[in-house]
Amino acid sequence: MGGFSTNNFKGFVLALLSSGFIGASFIIKKKGLRRAAAVSGVRAGVGGYAYLLEPLWWLGMITMIVGEVANFVAYAFAPAVLVTPLGALSIIVSAVLAQFILKERLHKLGILGCVMCISGSVIIVIHAPQERAISSVQEIWNMATQTAFLLYVGSVVVVVFILIFHFAPQCGSTNVLVFTGICSLMGSLSVMSVKALGTSLKLTFEGKNQLIFPETWFFMVVVAICVITQMNYLNKALDTFNTAVVSPIYYVMFTSLTILASVIMFKDWDGQSGGSIISEICGFIVVLSGTILLNVTKDYEGSSFRGAW
Amino acid sequence: MGGFSTNNFKGFVLALLSSGFIGASFIIKKKGLRRAAAVSGVRAGVGGYAYLLEPLWWLGMITMIVGEVANFVAYAFAPAVLVTPLGALSIIVSAVLAQFILKERLHKLGILGCVMCISGSVIIVIHAPQERAISSVQEIWNMATQTAFLLYVGSVVVVVFILIFHFAPQCGSTNVLVFTGICSLMGSLSVMSVKALGTSLKLTFEGKNQLIFPETWFFMVVVAICVITQMNYLNKALDTFNTAVVSPIYYVMFTSLTILASVIMFKDWDGQSGGSIISEICGFIVVLSGTILLNVTKDYEGSSFRGAW
Repeated sequence: MGGFSTNNFKGFVLALLSSGFIGASFIIKKKGLRRAAAVSGVRAGVGGYAYLLEPLWWLGMITMIVGEVANFVAYAFAPAVLVTPLGALSIIVSAVLAQFILKERLHKLGILGCVMCISGSVIIVIHAPQERAISSVQEIWNMATQTAFLLYVGSVVVVVFILIFHFAPQCGSTNVLVFTGICSLMGSLSVMSVKALGTSLKLTFEGKNQLIFPETWFFMVVVAICVITQMNYLNKALDTFNTAVVSPIYYVMFTSLTILASVIMFKDWDGQSGGSIISEICGFIVVLSGTILLNVTKDYEGSSFRGAW
Repeated sequence: MGGFSTNNFKGFVLALLSSGFIGASFIIKKKGLRRAAAVSGVRAGVGGYAYLLEPLWWLGMITMIVGEVANFVAYAFAPAVLVTPLGALSIIVSAVLAQFILKERLHKLGILGCVMCISGSVIIVIHAPQERAISSVQEIWNMATQTAFLLYVGSVVVVVFILIFHFAPQCGSTNVLVFTGICSLMGSLSVMSVKALGTSLKLTFEGKNQLIFPETWFFMVVVAICVITQMNYLNKALDTFNTAVVSPIYYVMFTSLTILASVIMFKDWDGQSGGSIISEICGFIVVLSGTILLNVTKDYEGSSFRGAW
């Protein structure tokens, strides 16, 4: 067990708050997108931007930004291996809210899915590694420029380019893996750069000014590029496909890639016992199963069961 | 983390073997009971004993006894908190065999249930407490006669009597909780006495003869009474109700009561960190959810989804 420090606890609470806001934002934005499509007749997935005139969509966007800021600050306190998987809790929030606001019925097996997401999250939280003490942005820079991590970034960028310029025009609107793949790949870089920037800002607020170093500004540019790309394609994915299909795929790919990136860059698992790492992976599998269950059963209405998988 | 000693490992392997045999036995016995009912027209649940003439039922019984012996020996090596929850794996074995032998179709969500049972079991195994070193049957006797445990035994006996003589004649064949309740309550006492007897026999084989103490013989009588009662009512439950209904209820009640009994008698959780105990409970919840999922979806055939819960 990694133990549970004050910093991990702060990160944990922020991650919970973040999930609440982000879960709510999904519902509000979805309602906004629906309304916009009803008014203009053109959907965001096929290139429409009518949703930009819809106040509800902006409210959802603001809720999401608040959630993302909480998430951002969470990454400054606790390791990505802890914060990222907790994102699944936003799915529970949105499932519960969907029942009341979008009038989607939550199936009894969906409740079982919620129980699993919570149990899995508890296991992940208990076994999260300690955040290592970082004293300057240069230290993060050195982590980001180690060969292994550069290789990771290189492969991600190449795959994203192939997806955007070759696959997206061809089968972006028929194959759910294209848009969600771009989101998830960029997402793993977003999280790493967000963590770098967040830690630098935290150090700055603590009195050790990091804004004098070009590395801090570089991370800021990377965050902007990654987050905008990620959000743009998440919008496209959400509007083109059913949330029930997008959410679990996005969760699995985004979380797996982020954990991979974090383990490469921050060496989260060094000094963790084998048992803790296995428990963490099992916790992740449990949350994942819960997510699948929640989403698979979300649209069940009795007769449609067999074909819904 | 409790660490994973050689004894825990032996107990773990034996528990796995035991689950294999017991899982197979469920299927073989069920086939035997079906055949016996077809021949005589009277079912065990309403007092028929025709299954005693059916060779398949006896084959199932032998498989079960081999499984139970493996289980019995497992308890001599590892704590009940480790061995008992692993019993859920027998449900996976029987679900897989049911597909081939009873031609029951395993639903895709059922596979998710299997994944969860395995993940949960891994978490339980990793966090299982160390078995404490016991050097004589008197030591176990002292544990069994502490006030807290005597109170537990007393309450169990009273409740079982009420269930057998008041509720069983009234609503035994309509309410699934009566027969499975009797099984589970007696089961928790079976496990404790089996563990006492197993440990005594293990000590005897190691050269410290415990058969000269009356306590060993007392435990032997208790084992016989508890196991016969438990088996008798498990037969009745299995024959009266659908396996899909009996299995998860039996698993939850039996495992919870056994963990409770073991924590009271053997103080398994003393010296365990809070994190380990919580992880273990989460692991148990995960296995339980997997069991429910596996059983709920076992009989789904598309259209029957809504009413099957």
